[in-house]
Amino acid sequence: MPKSSQPIGIFDSGVGGLTVLKEISRLLPSEDLIYLGDTARVPYGTRSPKTVIRYSQRNAEFLMRLGIKLLVVACNTSSAVSLEVLRAQNAVPVVGVIEPGARKAVELTTKGLIGVIGTEATIRSGAYQKAIKRWAKNPVRVVSRPCPLFVPLVEEGWLEDPITKEVARRYLTPLKGKGIDVLVLGCTHYPLLEGTIREVMGPEVKLVNSASETALEVKGILESLGIRKSFGEGRRRFFVTDGPEKFKHLGKLFLGELPGEVDEIDL
Amino acid sequence: MPKSSQPIGIFDSGVGGLTVLKEISRLLPSEDLIYLGDTARVPYGTRSPKTVIRYSQRNAEFLMRLGIKLLVVACNTSSAVSLEVLRAQNAVPVVGVIEPGARKAVELTTKGLIGVIGTEATIRSGAYQKAIKRWAKNPVRVVSRPCPLFVPLVEEGWLEDPITKEVARRYLTPLKGKGIDVLVLGCTHYPLLEGTIREVMGPEVKLVNSASETALEVKGILESLGIRKSFGEGRRRFFVTDGPEKFKHLGKLFLGELPGEVDEIDL
Repeated sequence: MPKSSQPIGIFDSGVGGLTVLKEISRLLPSEDLIYLGDTARVPYGTRSPKTVIRYSQRNAEFLMRLGIKLLVVACNTSSAVSLEVLRAQNAVPVVGVIEPGARKAVELTTKGLIGVIGTEATIRSGAYQKAIKRWAKNPVRVVSRPCPLFVPLVEEGWLEDPITKEVARRYLTPLKGKGIDVLVLGCTHYPLLEGTIREVMGPEVKLVNSASETALEVKGILESLGIRKSFGEGRRRFFVTDGPEKFKHLGKLFLGELPGEVDEIDL
Repeated sequence: MPKSSQPIGIFDSGVGGLTVLKEISRLLPSEDLIYLGDTARVPYGTRSPKTVIRYSQRNAEFLMRLGIKLLVVACNTSSAVSLEVLRAQNAVPVVGVIEPGARKAVELTTKGLIGVIGTEATIRSGAYQKAIKRWAKNPVRVVSRPCPLFVPLVEEGWLEDPITKEVARRYLTPLKGKGIDVLVLGCTHYPLLEGTIREVMGPEVKLVNSASETALEVKGILESLGIRKSFGEGRRRFFVTDGPEKFKHLGKLFLGELPGEVDEIDL
């Protein structure tokens, strides 16, 4: 059984998973966190499931060797296709970002009409759609929309920007028109656009931030296993497979300042 | 010495190099063309030079095994960092996309003030800037600007679009304000935005399309070596390292219809 003193491992294809790290840090400030961004192979969204599973296994192996007590798959694409394989191969709890967001969406909807946005690959995989149906007790309809420009707009730093608002309006107006009452932000970059998305969707549509839902799930699992670390200040370490400078630069958009060293590794 | 009946090999990190294939097809319709899109590793622009050189070597080896007579590196990032290595290791002429565009820009400028746009990596590499200085006989100044949203806007298919125009205005107005008289489209995707870019820059700024300049260079080399194929209709073959369906879909934006089979290979 893992011990409370061991770190939590988080991997993503790139920098986006930092929204998940941020929420875990906020909710569980004493935990030691190790983040791996597979920046040499980003984006996973355009790769085949077979390839994504292979990359994910490699990431998990690297983090397991560092003695983690729980693995967070902070990448939607990887959560969609590799969770079962990772659970079968690793002797620690594995948490993805899709189930927590899907569960929350089901909890929040009163009209039974849920919207999901994400990268092309996430939407095409149907993973949120399937997860929502699994959690729903009453019939729900899911309408989804890929928003491929949101990630580059975030990485450009154009968060509250007329161009980003116009793109959001283009992507989201059809979803709004369908009368959804809940919208799942199904990509780790999207919480940075929450203000813009909220403005387009209006106050009557509830937004589900998968990053904060995932952090809640991590907390629940650690507590139920009695391995939550609840004293001291947690340390953070960052590993990337390419371009540590760019990671640091983009990391500032997500976290203000990166609270730890960034090392480049070869996987 | 290579023979005229052998094919020309073209590689790019993804789909963008199809603008180069298109120009070569137009100029040299009898040539057999083999295109390799390393879609499992796209984009190269965010990788380190070391990584890009490794990928480029692998791509070149694959095409050399198919018996090509000339290698076109249709990827700006790869042209910027791997051309010398590829020339040293392969016994066929190797043509990149940077030199031809740089040479044309020098030829066209009367004010000695040249603008260059491209991906972040291409601009950061300084490759166009250096190539332009090499070709210039008189002093020239180069002002450059990364335009990271142009590639995803092209791949969204928003070619003549108010959002794309607004992004172009944001990126290009500062360049226009500096009084350049030539602008190099330093990314293989950008010829698809030529109309929009021209609208923002106005008729007094000449645009250099690296793809068509590269095709001219290929023609020149084949003719000077006496290995141009000038009869019959050329065949086209396409290889990708991931996602042939997506390649076909995006390929239509570039070529109308893909004039040949797309096979997935493992590199």
